Amino acid sequence: MASITPKLTVDAVIILNRKIVLIQRKNPPFQGKFALPGGFVELGETVEEAVSREVLEETGLIIEIVKLLGVYSEPSRDPRGHTVSIVYLAMGTGVPKAATDAEEVCLFDLQEMPEMAFDHNRIIENARGDIYGILSGM
Amino acid sequence: MASITPKLTVDAVIILNRKIVLIQRKNPPFQGKFALPGGFVELGETVEEAVSREVLEETGLIIEIVKLLGVYSEPSRDPRGHTVSIVYLAMGTGVPKAATDAEEVCLFDLQEMPEMAFDHNRIIENARGDIYGILSGM
Repeated sequence: MASITPKLTVDAVIILNRKIVLIQRKNPPFQGKFALPGGFVELGETVEEAVSREVLEETGLIIEIVKLLGVYSEPSRDPRGHTVSIVYLAMGTGVPKAATDAEEVCLFDLQEMPEMAFDHNRIIENARGDIYGILSGM
Repeated sequence: MASITPKLTVDAVIILNRKIVLIQRKNPPFQGKFALPGGFVELGETVEEAVSREVLEETGLIIEIVKLLGVYSEPSRDPRGHTVSIVYLAMGTGVPKAATDAEEVCLFDLQEMPEMAFDHNRIIENARGDIYGILSGM
């Protein structure tokens, strides 16, 4: 199975206290920028396991996946090379605490999202309807 | 970016003439078994481009993607190693003609699906509601 394929990542749009959870990136690319929590999928884990693990590592939060939001695969989306991200909407529980690749964990109102790394602003735009749906039911 | 991640594939549940398009696999694993058309995502293409290319190569059909059905990532789903498949529901047009990895292209009624390779029977089970939704609107 010699095929070389894009690297696989996961990202999570997490709702906690009616806000969206972002990390501030500790490392390049986009060092210092805000981003959705996420990271690379490891061999031997499912994508759902990967996103839960990455979120816990970076933010200290436990998540419950609500739905698959989409797959983002534009070859230019990551300056390091072609990565494909599978993005989930999730509910978070716990107390945010930055670790590993995250310098800080911050909560933002959906109306006041900062400029983000990669294509994460576009992900949030596309998720807006689903996020409002959840917030209006809380 | 040294991370080793699972290999990325795409598969399509294609509706053509109110039936589901399957290929008979020419090569191992699951040689001779029926399967959804699909294959590996190449560096530099989006997942939507990859699924359209693979379907055209294997079946001669042009597809229009209807929706993202899901992501299948159980590490044991492919005996060659860990692959993660992004699965789309699509409408097909054209005349089926087997090529590349496909020995044959066959159309099956949703009620009469054969035993398939990988976890493709499970994919069809999970897609059943969406497929009926389309068939009932045709």
